[in-house]
Amino acid sequence: MAERARPISVAGKVMAILDAFALGDVRLNLSEICRRSGLPLATGHRLVGELVAGGFLERVPDGTYRIGTRLWRIGSQAPAVTGLRELALPHMEDLYEATHDNVQLAVLRDRRVLVVERLRGTRSVPVVTQVGATLPLHATGVGKVLLAYAPAEVREAVLAGGLPRHAPRTITDPEELRRCVEQVRRSGYSVTRDEMTLGAASVGAPVRDAEGAVVAALSLVSRTRSADLRRLLPPLTTAARALSRDVAAHWRGRPDALSAERKAGA
Amino acid sequence: MAERARPISVAGKVMAILDAFALGDVRLNLSEICRRSGLPLATGHRLVGELVAGGFLERVPDGTYRIGTRLWRIGSQAPAVTGLRELALPHMEDLYEATHDNVQLAVLRDRRVLVVERLRGTRSVPVVTQVGATLPLHATGVGKVLLAYAPAEVREAVLAGGLPRHAPRTITDPEELRRCVEQVRRSGYSVTRDEMTLGAASVGAPVRDAEGAVVAALSLVSRTRSADLRRLLPPLTTAARALSRDVAAHWRGRPDALSAERKAGA
Repeated sequence: MAERARPISVAGKVMAILDAFALGDVRLNLSEICRRSGLPLATGHRLVGELVAGGFLERVPDGTYRIGTRLWRIGSQAPAVTGLRELALPHMEDLYEATHDNVQLAVLRDRRVLVVERLRGTRSVPVVTQVGATLPLHATGVGKVLLAYAPAEVREAVLAGGLPRHAPRTITDPEELRRCVEQVRRSGYSVTRDEMTLGAASVGAPVRDAEGAVVAALSLVSRTRSADLRRLLPPLTTAARALSRDVAAHWRGRPDALSAERKAGA
Repeated sequence: MAERARPISVAGKVMAILDAFALGDVRLNLSEICRRSGLPLATGHRLVGELVAGGFLERVPDGTYRIGTRLWRIGSQAPAVTGLRELALPHMEDLYEATHDNVQLAVLRDRRVLVVERLRGTRSVPVVTQVGATLPLHATGVGKVLLAYAPAEVREAVLAGGLPRHAPRTITDPEELRRCVEQVRRSGYSVTRDEMTLGAASVGAPVRDAEGAVVAALSLVSRTRSADLRRLLPPLTTAARALSRDVAAHWRGRPDALSAERKAGA
């Protein structure tokens, strides 16, 4: 999440309150909302009350607050995300059916992986990732793909910004990660093993638009001990290419359609 | 969408602007946003500019505005919806795999069907419904289920409120709809044929919580000419019961978890 200056205008304060929930916390109490949004308690109390009255937040009986269904409904109309999701879903269903593993679709956003859609492999490794969550670029299959094709300044910023360890085999050395993403660019796919979560492995592939620019990444997340590249790669790259064709065909003549997403990622 | 009084406070104005997009329009220009939100052009212009700066709205090169990815991300954290979605997705994937038809999950909201999740049957009838969209209760499989188990005052309000025709066989007579939903309560499932869209048929079944209250509906949407109850009902009711067990187990001890959704529907 980008840093937000201490909000001055009321609209800025409203956005800061809603942003307090963007980190994925389901419920926050008033003082936590105010702390995160940089608002005095009285101001926070008044605005949160208005947001509850409007259905944008919901008050839980224990006194905490959570994002309301009305806000979910408005957010679900975001075309940059839902357009891509609509195109991807049939291909993701095919991938699920072929592999019964977890299928993830993600885009680059603020130097993180933003998970746009996910099908859960009920007989595969449990994945806690939620739609709308963000993940680190350097430790995930989708992330390595997005990093490999990101503008050079994004890649350098990530390499220079520190590579926290998430699991035993997370790549924490910038030079090793640089070699890894160069390999992704050469081969056209990424592989992770025990890098984000012990026991989970993933393969990722790029989704391209009509000009060949990488606009998203598709991945399969499987158990490390049963993750066999020869089994996972052919359906993954097939689905990623089929989705790329749909993206190229669907967004033709609408050059703005995904540009906000790309720009946001850059 | 509930009626909203002309907004007075700035927070109310911000919510009114965002609400202008809730009807599912992908892009709106400034004057349309102001008309829908009841704001003067100067006020609307200033607040829309702030929302664009904050990433809540995005400005498209043609000068129109659309919901931004940041708002999508915050909205996707709404626990009443995403909790249900997370529980339902594995069962929906099983249903998709068994039938290859469209699978829909919906809740009651403001006397309409709110679509929470959808898997698209690539070899079934095309369905235009998007996640986050609302549908009429009287013309859909999920809607008839939700209507059948809704509080009596909701049912009477829908019956008295007019039943618009959407397709050749939409039930437009209140007494016929009343008999239909009584039949749904007796049989435990709903059926529609050419009632929402010509050529599309659906079967719906209730999802219950630990106390037996209906909290959602699950449906299969198929081509009318190939919709065979004997084929569609067994997997549908099996999946709806399995999901009900998960809802009952998962939400136990958290009685508030779905109550906001139920209250909103009531």
